[in-house]
Amino acid sequence: MKSLKNQTKTIDELENGILAGNRVVLAQAITLIESHLTSDKQVAEVLIQRILPKTGKATRIGITGAPGVGKSTFIEVLGKYLTSIHKKIAVLAIDPSSKKTKGSILGDKTRMDELSKDPLAFIRPSASSGSLGGVTNSTQETILLCEAAGFDVIIIETVGVGQSETTVREMTDFFLLLMLAGAGDELQGIKKGIIEMADAMVITKADGENVKYARQAQVEFEHAMHLSSATDSKWVQRVLISSALTNMGIDDVWNTIEQYIILTKGNGFFNQQRNKQEILSFHRNIDEIIKQSIADKSKTFLTDLENKIKAKQLSPRQAARLVLDKTLS
Amino acid sequence: MKSLKNQTKTIDELENGILAGNRVVLAQAITLIESHLTSDKQVAEVLIQRILPKTGKATRIGITGAPGVGKSTFIEVLGKYLTSIHKKIAVLAIDPSSKKTKGSILGDKTRMDELSKDPLAFIRPSASSGSLGGVTNSTQETILLCEAAGFDVIIIETVGVGQSETTVREMTDFFLLLMLAGAGDELQGIKKGIIEMADAMVITKADGENVKYARQAQVEFEHAMHLSSATDSKWVQRVLISSALTNMGIDDVWNTIEQYIILTKGNGFFNQQRNKQEILSFHRNIDEIIKQSIADKSKTFLTDLENKIKAKQLSPRQAARLVLDKTLS
Repeated sequence: MKSLKNQTKTIDELENGILAGNRVVLAQAITLIESHLTSDKQVAEVLIQRILPKTGKATRIGITGAPGVGKSTFIEVLGKYLTSIHKKIAVLAIDPSSKKTKGSILGDKTRMDELSKDPLAFIRPSASSGSLGGVTNSTQETILLCEAAGFDVIIIETVGVGQSETTVREMTDFFLLLMLAGAGDELQGIKKGIIEMADAMVITKADGENVKYARQAQVEFEHAMHLSSATDSKWVQRVLISSALTNMGIDDVWNTIEQYIILTKGNGFFNQQRNKQEILSFHRNIDEIIKQSIADKSKTFLTDLENKIKAKQLSPRQAARLVLDKTLS
Repeated sequence: MKSLKNQTKTIDELENGILAGNRVVLAQAITLIESHLTSDKQVAEVLIQRILPKTGKATRIGITGAPGVGKSTFIEVLGKYLTSIHKKIAVLAIDPSSKKTKGSILGDKTRMDELSKDPLAFIRPSASSGSLGGVTNSTQETILLCEAAGFDVIIIETVGVGQSETTVREMTDFFLLLMLAGAGDELQGIKKGIIEMADAMVITKADGENVKYARQAQVEFEHAMHLSSATDSKWVQRVLISSALTNMGIDDVWNTIEQYIILTKGNGFFNQQRNKQEILSFHRNIDEIIKQSIADKSKTFLTDLENKIKAKQLSPRQAARLVLDKTLS
């Protein structure tokens, strides 16, 4: 294939390839977005700008859960279900911690072995590079590329640690939290705030002996969730149970998501949320771009100022003012 | 008093008043720091720069604890103890939530009635204005003013909610967590991370029947804390008990803080931590100043861009790039 040999494509080639749904070109474009090279970034920016009118049509789903809950197995089974009903599905992953753990999430693509071979599916691990802000902004743009490439459903997977849930919530339409039965201990691993931001909770591994416990947990979680239910979306949080082993409940999960989309598109919340998310992304990008610009411009200048602060020659604020003056000049 | 009538002082008058320990002038200077007027901010910046060489000598103590733990009573009793041994003490408060709750912390100055009448004490509620970053930066500079005004001990009080503990930890030498006996439930209100960042924990209200429970809790917390004890400071976290009713343990708290100061000044950690905190403050100030500068410059410009993003005419990143271009021009 010519496209594999010749990695440097023109913007036209990239644009046409993506719009034609060519996943080799899509993968190359995502690599451009994740690149730290200024030249790559510039190309990526123009590319995103060009494909923008073709974006926004997919259903964006965030999925999180503590390690051990069976996230990738669940996503594989959900993904297979979706491709069986002729949906094109992309799975992306945000994992700010993977720099340390060398790819704890999706790092081994074999984890979604079957799905990755499915011609209707596209699986892409995150750019595990540096700040969460950077990862977030590039994932946001990867969503746009996947939409332009014609994917119907985009799943953003994240590990149940720290800040990443909030940012995934901020770029998806529907947020799904996976939990294990035998709540008590498990609940402590997941912060309350994450439960509150979930549109639905799915209790996984509900097969064999476990079905009983899963149903118990379902009732318990339903009680816990409904305390914090009234939202702008008018959606009432659901608790579902599923098994990746028996496929039980997988169609329920998708039906629930579809009901949510119909409800929120009907009452206007869907678009409001998307708009809000785009503005958030705008401000995150401002922060990232300006920080980058300061770092690029004035590495030694910053060090000088830090030394003057330590020597009490400058107050932190006055030093910050000098950075602004230099950045603006 | 002339100073009360004529609120507009020259920088010289402010500087001299502060260095002379005049608390009316000190209060006016803090108001300048907290002001949102550009002209006030400029004066404040020059003032801080001038008094900078006279700063750094106080012991900076952060105190936190869940509502109901008896924070202000504890601080009042500790404050009275300190003034009784001829220490000048300033009490500041950070309360990012007070915009909503209309001053939940120190809002009623009567809460520290006795201490507020003490000629060696100065009590100042926080500027409860807007972002935590802004509050943090102005509190940081208020510390500097109080040091220039000759205070020996500066206590920063914060409520046990959210992010504010981290920022108080980042501007103090010693961080004290107040807890109630009857651990279990109480522990859940306080995040693990806050316990980890405390240099000492004080179990309050250890009087009457409660002494027994306080001692039990002391043993339990000691076990829990020592699991995460080895730090750069070589300091081993302590658990103390105290009663504001009987004054029991208050001198212990101060002795503990003094031991910490001696240890960490001896092994260099004290200065390392201060330096690190100043650099943090520098970067917080950069963020704040640049955000402010963008907001000042281009309010309608931002709104225009937001509308273009909503209309899919611009990607969030491209819009962010335009902000940078405008800011840099």
